[in-house]
Amino acid sequence: MTSAVPALTQVRDRVDGALRAFLGQQRDVLLRAGDELLPGVEAMTGLLAGGKRLRPAFCYWGWRGAGGHDCPEIINAAAALEFLHASALVHDDIMDASDTRRGQPSLHRQFEAYHTARGWHGSPGAFGMGMAILLGDLLLAWTDEMFHSSGLPDDALRRGRPVLDLMRTEVFAGQYLDLLGQAAGDGTLDSALRVVEYKTSKYTIERPLHLGAALAGAPWRTGAEAPGAGPRGQAAALAAAYSAYGLPLGTAFQLRDDILGVFGDPAQTGKPAGDDVREGKHTVLLAIARARATGPQAAIIEKYLGDPLLDEAGTTEVRTVIADTGAVAECEAMISRHVAEAVAALAAAPITGEAKDALADLAVAATARND
Amino acid sequence: MTSAVPALTQVRDRVDGALRAFLGQQRDVLLRAGDELLPGVEAMTGLLAGGKRLRPAFCYWGWRGAGGHDCPEIINAAAALEFLHASALVHDDIMDASDTRRGQPSLHRQFEAYHTARGWHGSPGAFGMGMAILLGDLLLAWTDEMFHSSGLPDDALRRGRPVLDLMRTEVFAGQYLDLLGQAAGDGTLDSALRVVEYKTSKYTIERPLHLGAALAGAPWRTGAEAPGAGPRGQAAALAAAYSAYGLPLGTAFQLRDDILGVFGDPAQTGKPAGDDVREGKHTVLLAIARARATGPQAAIIEKYLGDPLLDEAGTTEVRTVIADTGAVAECEAMISRHVAEAVAALAAAPITGEAKDALADLAVAATARND
Repeated sequence: MTSAVPALTQVRDRVDGALRAFLGQQRDVLLRAGDELLPGVEAMTGLLAGGKRLRPAFCYWGWRGAGGHDCPEIINAAAALEFLHASALVHDDIMDASDTRRGQPSLHRQFEAYHTARGWHGSPGAFGMGMAILLGDLLLAWTDEMFHSSGLPDDALRRGRPVLDLMRTEVFAGQYLDLLGQAAGDGTLDSALRVVEYKTSKYTIERPLHLGAALAGAPWRTGAEAPGAGPRGQAAALAAAYSAYGLPLGTAFQLRDDILGVFGDPAQTGKPAGDDVREGKHTVLLAIARARATGPQAAIIEKYLGDPLLDEAGTTEVRTVIADTGAVAECEAMISRHVAEAVAALAAAPITGEAKDALADLAVAATARND
Repeated sequence: MTSAVPALTQVRDRVDGALRAFLGQQRDVLLRAGDELLPGVEAMTGLLAGGKRLRPAFCYWGWRGAGGHDCPEIINAAAALEFLHASALVHDDIMDASDTRRGQPSLHRQFEAYHTARGWHGSPGAFGMGMAILLGDLLLAWTDEMFHSSGLPDDALRRGRPVLDLMRTEVFAGQYLDLLGQAAGDGTLDSALRVVEYKTSKYTIERPLHLGAALAGAPWRTGAEAPGAGPRGQAAALAAAYSAYGLPLGTAFQLRDDILGVFGDPAQTGKPAGDDVREGKHTVLLAIARARATGPQAAIIEKYLGDPLLDEAGTTEVRTVIADTGAVAECEAMISRHVAEAVAALAAAPITGEAKDALADLAVAATARND
């Protein structure tokens, strides 16, 4: 991801500051219960120090596009989405048995090591998992606390809340479908794309934009109401425009992530090479590769998919096969097409020119090949 | 627990209705993502059908005691606490590897069995755990959604929010200390009592009362401000009175739970006999028993504590030893003393007579020996 895009970096630095301030307050609350909470505070602070702040950026530009003025309060509200995301990452890493996150050991592994180093009672793995479940819960609860204590007025919060509520329910629904698909799925492109819609497109881009718009005053619509004249019609047109931009861009973003999950450099992804193959993820890239694979190619993919012991040599072999099927080229073409569709939707969007420029830049930044 | 207490049953039936209505709405949202969400919806609905609704009852009577009128909106807001509690139970059961909850298989076991029955890919245990993590997250997110969509006016919600926020952070801090205590703890009474304060007393009784009071209009204080004249002083006096009642009652409630966790009838507890011993819980009862045990008694307690294979004969043996140490009698005496202290605090509390009667009844009901 191109981190030099001002639409992203300007928001990111201020979001970082808002998160640090909030974490400082919570640190005091937790340490009142006992000094033993300090390692938990530090683990959460370390996790929150990373991340590209993509969801806050879309929330912020959703607000600006709807006519909202720049102010610290919208930064606070947008930053709250980082807690939801951090919670999802912590709990995802338990479910996927991932060792690494943002270039550091995942939270359950940190506490497993903490237990082992001290020679405590019981299973280090169970202790690490329990701690990570609890800290993920705390991060999830803080989403809400930071949102509501953002300083935005009550009427803005009242308009934003249903969007935040729906966003949370949808992302859990997407994760549920993903987990179910890995256990029972048919491995088809259609089922992979439905997971992407809920787990990524709505969660990462469409709903953050809708949240910003709702906070800025546009009553939010699910799309049931046809765009038309009057303030309600204008709001519906705005929400529809953000969906027309956000949903294809979300798909493109996930496809880039799929490619990085197999071919990415660990220094960039913060995850070991080939992690998606090792974890047996049912990604769109792998669905396309499996659909296009010849018999021998399919045998190699099946051999390594979900193998926890996948090594360097196996990673190289499966990468070659996936590329040979043409799946990567097809994904790159899909990314280009979806980004073009997203950017084209901005032309007619009823938003400020500044927001159009920023969202066009974010579309490229969120789906770029390299940092 | 004596379920015939009107202060509890009147609230419970209305909370049940509010939860059913909310779950019906969420069912529609989830099924829009896919019919595959149905087993998740059903598992959450089954879990939410049980429970004594103790936290909503304290929230409701905290409101009534502060002068709030009976209305459906406070029932909705109070019912939201059941989602927080259900989430904690689902995640606790994963951490404790508990098979049973409210007389049914725990959620992770339900989904493990679901996976096994269908012969799906991967580990049934990992699938069950993943599903239970996600559903617990969803329940936690719904706490907030139900609270904010209760229909209470914005100014009431604004007053209540910091209490709900603090309540969530405190309960996770208590669970963290509990998990840490089980791994690294000294097993002393002091450390067990600190866990009780955060994990039970504040969470189950004090904060729900404070939440009700804050929603009813009493600006809420952490106790930093001295009670005195004027509206702020009155609010501080009310909060202090609820703490004086809630904290000792919470300890008594937990001690009853500790006794039931070793000696309880599975039909009453919804958990297998002797479950706390099997799971190696660092309860106050066990801390007292260990402190009072002779050498041979201590050897038997250590032998069975945390033994996942503890059977009927072992349960009987360890029960006898715990009773022989005098720990049960000491716990019963502590319960009586704490309940008396809680009820005595009501006499001078600046609350309505009706609320005093209800809270006195609830104190007995929450700590009674049998159903």
